[in-house]
Amino acid sequence: MRAGEMAEAYPVVGLDTSALVAARFIARDRLPGIVVTEADGSPKAVLAASQVVRFMVPDYVQDDPTLAGVLGDVPAARIADRLRQVKVAELLPEKPAELAVLHADDTIVEVAATMARLRSPLCAVVDHDRILGVITASRLLDLVCGEQFG
Amino acid sequence: MRAGEMAEAYPVVGLDTSALVAARFIARDRLPGIVVTEADGSPKAVLAASQVVRFMVPDYVQDDPTLAGVLGDVPAARIADRLRQVKVAELLPEKPAELAVLHADDTIVEVAATMARLRSPLCAVVDHDRILGVITASRLLDLVCGEQFG
Repeated sequence: MRAGEMAEAYPVVGLDTSALVAARFIARDRLPGIVVTEADGSPKAVLAASQVVRFMVPDYVQDDPTLAGVLGDVPAARIADRLRQVKVAELLPEKPAELAVLHADDTIVEVAATMARLRSPLCAVVDHDRILGVITASRLLDLVCGEQFG
Repeated sequence: MRAGEMAEAYPVVGLDTSALVAARFIARDRLPGIVVTEADGSPKAVLAASQVVRFMVPDYVQDDPTLAGVLGDVPAARIADRLRQVKVAELLPEKPAELAVLHADDTIVEVAATMARLRSPLCAVVDHDRILGVITASRLLDLVCGEQFG
């Protein structure tokens, strides 16, 4: 089995995509993150789910998490509004983690080695710069040693 | 909404659990990781899916990922056997990342702040040291700004 066969089709987002749209893709597919592409469609970065979660929290609470407790119950709609107002580009760290990019003919061990080296929960599989799909760490574990193998 | 209501029931594993069993739980539920408990049932660490993936790769390939290519196709069964032979304790880093532990009455912002601070894809929700369940980053995003909110 090679990376091209292991890849699953998931939506990707651009730097200009609304953070709320990215959050909803991650939520709907219960993904650990989502692939961010350049304007030409080539993969640029992984936006981890926890990076989106980070933006749900006001800046001053990010700096001092003990303040989260005194805020009380913030309506979910107000948090969603925060995400609606920013783009994916603003959620990425200044130096985004190296994107795990695999090629369609990479072997299981190559997929695992890349994912492990980058400690990435997901990687993009490309064929000549075109994204074929995504492999999550849990998908890889399922394909290699899932319950179907008894 | 508080953490206790947001938590989902997922299996936890102990330090003595076979790595293969942990891998299968992660794979079956498509989780970003799994909570590891002490012998008394209290939460100890998160075993990230990518840490299990790391162990799928022979040591010398972990040290030099370019060697992954020369291995060719390693049968999935042989990789699963590697996992069968070790316990969860051996997959955890020497200094495991701080476990994100939330309390049942924590607010959405407290959950998000903790998850963001630890950059953790999942956290355990406890009530007096008893684990009520787990909240993943994608679950949190779904509850706060999922498509159901239109």
